[in-house]
Amino acid sequence: MTKPSSSPLLISAPGKVILFGEHAVVHQKLAVAASLGLRTYMYLDQNTSGVCRVHLPDVQVEASWSLADIPRLHNYEGHPLEAPAEFKAKLDGLMKGHTEHESQRKAALAFLHLIAVLAPANTEQGLVLRARSTLPVGAGLGSSASFSAAMATALLLTFGHISSASDPASLETINRYAFMAEQVIHGNPSGLDNSVATFGGAKSFRRGGAFETLEGFQSLDLLLTNTKVPRSTSVLVAGVGAKKTTYPTIVEPMLDAIDQISARCKDAFLRRKQNAISQQELLAELEDLVDINHCLLHGLGVSHASLEQVRAITGERGIKTKLTGAGGGGCALSIVPHGLPQKEIETVKAQLAAAGYDCYQTSLGGLGITTSVLTAGQDEKWLMEASREDLEERILTI
Amino acid sequence: MTKPSSSPLLISAPGKVILFGEHAVVHQKLAVAASLGLRTYMYLDQNTSGVCRVHLPDVQVEASWSLADIPRLHNYEGHPLEAPAEFKAKLDGLMKGHTEHESQRKAALAFLHLIAVLAPANTEQGLVLRARSTLPVGAGLGSSASFSAAMATALLLTFGHISSASDPASLETINRYAFMAEQVIHGNPSGLDNSVATFGGAKSFRRGGAFETLEGFQSLDLLLTNTKVPRSTSVLVAGVGAKKTTYPTIVEPMLDAIDQISARCKDAFLRRKQNAISQQELLAELEDLVDINHCLLHGLGVSHASLEQVRAITGERGIKTKLTGAGGGGCALSIVPHGLPQKEIETVKAQLAAAGYDCYQTSLGGLGITTSVLTAGQDEKWLMEASREDLEERILTI
Repeated sequence: MTKPSSSPLLISAPGKVILFGEHAVVHQKLAVAASLGLRTYMYLDQNTSGVCRVHLPDVQVEASWSLADIPRLHNYEGHPLEAPAEFKAKLDGLMKGHTEHESQRKAALAFLHLIAVLAPANTEQGLVLRARSTLPVGAGLGSSASFSAAMATALLLTFGHISSASDPASLETINRYAFMAEQVIHGNPSGLDNSVATFGGAKSFRRGGAFETLEGFQSLDLLLTNTKVPRSTSVLVAGVGAKKTTYPTIVEPMLDAIDQISARCKDAFLRRKQNAISQQELLAELEDLVDINHCLLHGLGVSHASLEQVRAITGERGIKTKLTGAGGGGCALSIVPHGLPQKEIETVKAQLAAAGYDCYQTSLGGLGITTSVLTAGQDEKWLMEASREDLEERILTI
Repeated sequence: MTKPSSSPLLISAPGKVILFGEHAVVHQKLAVAASLGLRTYMYLDQNTSGVCRVHLPDVQVEASWSLADIPRLHNYEGHPLEAPAEFKAKLDGLMKGHTEHESQRKAALAFLHLIAVLAPANTEQGLVLRARSTLPVGAGLGSSASFSAAMATALLLTFGHISSASDPASLETINRYAFMAEQVIHGNPSGLDNSVATFGGAKSFRRGGAFETLEGFQSLDLLLTNTKVPRSTSVLVAGVGAKKTTYPTIVEPMLDAIDQISARCKDAFLRRKQNAISQQELLAELEDLVDINHCLLHGLGVSHASLEQVRAITGERGIKTKLTGAGGGGCALSIVPHGLPQKEIETVKAQLAAAGYDCYQTSLGGLGITTSVLTAGQDEKWLMEASREDLEERILTI
């Protein structure tokens, strides 16, 4: 166990998008996910007050507990829902009087659970966690995994289980506890989101199989558009399942085509790495794959008028767009074509905003967990009060 | 040889739409085509003037020749392009001074070719053919085959090769000569269009195979929208071919899915015939298939912003639409849902018209060749002068 650092730290973790293969992955097909330039930024201040405080202004969570009141479950590695009943009852007791919505409540519960597992028996350690996020919440962009990975990093550092977040072993540890927090929040997550939030880059995956890092994967410019149309993932997943049951001979080859799109994406990055294709050729292939994948998803019944409008607006400038995640609304991703002038991108962004959508110009496949010591002018107060736009702009210069 | 009829006749023949499988059919997959409610109406008046006259006001063709000047090729059944050079030169001679566009010129040439093949050596027979069509020309709706089938019927009746157009043997004969006219016009047609124009109903077909009549096929209400966006069929076909070459493992299963859509369509009509599904269930299946087929075609790169707009407008009222034919503009077909009030349909038609498209409310899978004796008030003058709207409305009451 190493000595905890005492300077305030800024920890950040990315969100994720599914690049190819959503829905098909439910039917044992290959999918590809990548980290997103939109991130959670977490301020960590350690002290000796014996008080643990969590503050998430974007989702109205603010709570603190005395470390002495938090039950301990040191080194527990099981599923949080399988923790001893007595322990769970104690945590529930600590949550009494917290009347937040279920998802906020679960974020606070995950904080308590990780402290219970990671804090040594006798310590006067105290800490303040404050997080902001440029990720829209509940939009299928892995905002909770991004929070979970940043929080796991903060607590592992605070309680001295790791001394940095840059070596592979520490990242594996962070990912394990980020997954535990995700289990508190989601019950039975796949582990993909926390894995991308922790390691960054891109991963391919098949249900029940391991996540494979995409060889040669590199960061890409991206427009991410949130239609803000609410949808139910479970209803959409069931709809595709029903279509497959009704039209098996039609839907099965469509899912196979999606499987091959994911495989082709992996292959394209590998060929780029081997210099077998140029950057421009790589982008052109990804654009083709994005377009075909969307059409297949549309055929499976999971597009939406709003997503088609995003495709029409971006398509007018030759930008290829697909839905990402569950569909039926939610988010769309667009590959920014090679050499497209920023002025054109601004026009598209303005058109998307005029249509009522939130459009983020960001990137794909960037870093996972990062930590940095805060410098003057980048204090917690600024972090807490900055607008989302300020946050995006200024934080990138840290 | 039977005695030619002498009362003026109205002959009509339908256009065709591809219901499922366009483009995929180029790659040996199954497709389904059906007759269209939009038709060519041909007025036939026989006389003893020895003059053969053809008048197609919609495409500005008006020409007449003395029968004695037309070379004969009696009972010739070979490809028109393989006819003796001397014969072809004579026909070309008759076309001197005709400065129409290529397609009009070919319609007149087909008229001469069929007369050459069908007219006996010594006859004072004369005839007037006047045709109108409610089919847009060059929109992939089989307008030339519809004209060819009606003309073949007219000339076969005039020269006494058939005595009616209602028995199967006569229809086979009509189809053979309609195909010959199509060969004059198109060089190397598949024979599908003339087959649908002659027999009506719906046919499934696979390249190089026979056309199969769809068992249990029944007429369906349809909206047909002409985007009027010009496109090159050969460029679009080549585009799909190139995509298949670049992404074989992705495109091949997409084409397989389309193959299975056509097969499912056949199966659905058969199940309806056997009363295994209700009319409403049949329509619901066809709507699903239309939607999926369009998305697959879009993924193959042959949709167009105009077609997507037609889908958006019709989709708002729950009407499923797909491109039909080559895509890239051209026409879209929409299945009219079970029980949709006419008022709603009118609203959609008005919206499509406001967007600059021609929308026809018509049907699918109706009769092939029909003949009827003209009655008072339905004379050739009326036929020639009626607006397209009048034509559609009044002719249906004949």
